[in-house]
Amino acid sequence: MKKLINDPNACAAELLEGLVEAYDGQCVKVGKASIVKTDIPEGKVALLVGGGSGHEPIYHGLVGTNLADGAACGDIFAAPSPDIVLEATQAVNKGNGVLYLYGNYAGDVMNFDIGAELAEEEGIKVRTVLIWDDVCSAPPTEKEKRRGIAGLVPIVKLAGAASQEAKSLDALEATVIKARDNTRSVGVSMSPGSIPASGKPTFEIAEDKIGLGMGIHGERGVGEIPMTTADELVPKMLDLLFADDLEFEAGCEVVLLVNSLGSTTMMELLICLRAAKRVLNGRGIKVHDTIIGPLVTCQEMSGISFSLTKLDDELRTLWDMPCESVCYTKL
Amino acid sequence: MKKLINDPNACAAELLEGLVEAYDGQCVKVGKASIVKTDIPEGKVALLVGGGSGHEPIYHGLVGTNLADGAACGDIFAAPSPDIVLEATQAVNKGNGVLYLYGNYAGDVMNFDIGAELAEEEGIKVRTVLIWDDVCSAPPTEKEKRRGIAGLVPIVKLAGAASQEAKSLDALEATVIKARDNTRSVGVSMSPGSIPASGKPTFEIAEDKIGLGMGIHGERGVGEIPMTTADELVPKMLDLLFADDLEFEAGCEVVLLVNSLGSTTMMELLICLRAAKRVLNGRGIKVHDTIIGPLVTCQEMSGISFSLTKLDDELRTLWDMPCESVCYTKL
Repeated sequence: MKKLINDPNACAAELLEGLVEAYDGQCVKVGKASIVKTDIPEGKVALLVGGGSGHEPIYHGLVGTNLADGAACGDIFAAPSPDIVLEATQAVNKGNGVLYLYGNYAGDVMNFDIGAELAEEEGIKVRTVLIWDDVCSAPPTEKEKRRGIAGLVPIVKLAGAASQEAKSLDALEATVIKARDNTRSVGVSMSPGSIPASGKPTFEIAEDKIGLGMGIHGERGVGEIPMTTADELVPKMLDLLFADDLEFEAGCEVVLLVNSLGSTTMMELLICLRAAKRVLNGRGIKVHDTIIGPLVTCQEMSGISFSLTKLDDELRTLWDMPCESVCYTKL
Repeated sequence: MKKLINDPNACAAELLEGLVEAYDGQCVKVGKASIVKTDIPEGKVALLVGGGSGHEPIYHGLVGTNLADGAACGDIFAAPSPDIVLEATQAVNKGNGVLYLYGNYAGDVMNFDIGAELAEEEGIKVRTVLIWDDVCSAPPTEKEKRRGIAGLVPIVKLAGAASQEAKSLDALEATVIKARDNTRSVGVSMSPGSIPASGKPTFEIAEDKIGLGMGIHGERGVGEIPMTTADELVPKMLDLLFADDLEFEAGCEVVLLVNSLGSTTMMELLICLRAAKRVLNGRGIKVHDTIIGPLVTCQEMSGISFSLTKLDDELRTLWDMPCESVCYTKL
């Protein structure tokens, strides 16, 4: 894979500088590796996201209008260090507390927790909601072992909207937990991405196989199945969502995200969306809004994921609020 | 390349069905292969785009709010047939004429021209503006030989905004010609995409080479250069823009688009944006807005392009109008 980069060990730092440029003045870099909005109002309950780099446009591309207030950014596929988390927390804090919202990976949990302790020593109130939307990474009775994958995009979108008018950190936390608990994702991978510093693929998979339920770094899921068509694969994937503990009953309303892991094309996403809509229509599930594109990626990995967020009246109102960022914009 | 498709010969038809689904009711399929907005006001001067499929999210993903009213869609890498152009024209026509706006490729020009003749026989007034932003495909004295590449995104964005309030087809045409004449693009490619029906790459290029000025299907440009870093390549690319006949003087304002041809990652785009902003800052060119992402693609091709659109007061006002589509959304 020919990558257009400079020093392979400087990718995370340089992409962050580029990301700040992409915001045309709406965001600045803070401390070692955080990106923060320039116009957070005094007294706002702040929303902080973060995680490893290399998955662009997430996580730090989710900072923006009616989205996150800031992001703590790690090196490629590595959690941000506690001091980066602290710097980001200090920068987004406007006196009413900071909600941390990020994917459930051991390194991130450890470092954000230490960052939270350091922030609390300075009198900044912190709460954490972990994103664990990937149904293939653990059974529903062990959600705290599940990974965060593409469902983080609708969850952060809802959290960002809620944070605009949240009266308190408690209130924001409750809404964000509901958004998280109403979201499920399932992914597949056909081929790996490669690590910029080594040029090596993050995993291996046979030419004629698909990794069903594979994580965004190639973590094991349900197992490998033979390569197949979109129309055969998509119902299998959605069945894994419907077999989980959250009921998607006939008549319910959802946001549907069809995500590319990297080099899977928009052509393929659209063909898979066509197949998915047939399944959802057959079950009487109403799609309120569809998001489609490469939003949660792992370098040039190929694969797709589906995420469903079930809406109630509160979440639908939050969903319909416009938002803007490098990762996701909605009118 | 493992592609998640069904019948390789049905990709264009199936992705169009998926695209209609992605619009959640805002667009419908019309005739054989057109996508058209459902809420075009009576009397509106209509804007029709189009071209071959396989480059998603363009061209048909540019239909939307304050963007194009419809698109005539061809098969993979093939122009829409004249009857498809006619069906799309009939569907978007609201009595005040239709502006065709598409990339300058021989097949598209032939079929859109025949479609225009058929439409005019029915009393529908048609004008055509060809997009020829690629500076590497012919010298500035022979613009009519230049290809349309990623610059079509800012041009269609401006045209869509202008069409909302255009008093006549003449007036719209004049503004769109200005947007086109103020836009220049340059691209490179590192590796080819593949054709779904054959599985074959669209061109070949050595492992250690970059095609400078290559077209989005692998058409020859300035030549091949050794693979290099982002910081060395980007100034070379921008120099090709600045050597062209449109002056980007110190103090001028531009929209900057950094586009991925497919599998080039957002990480790389951001690192290249960082390098580009240094060059633009050095020349005193002010970036009014930055767009970044895989918007004009050729399957899993790797490569990037830069487009610059120079703004005057009229174009800046049009740029600042919000828009929404599968391809590009702006708050």
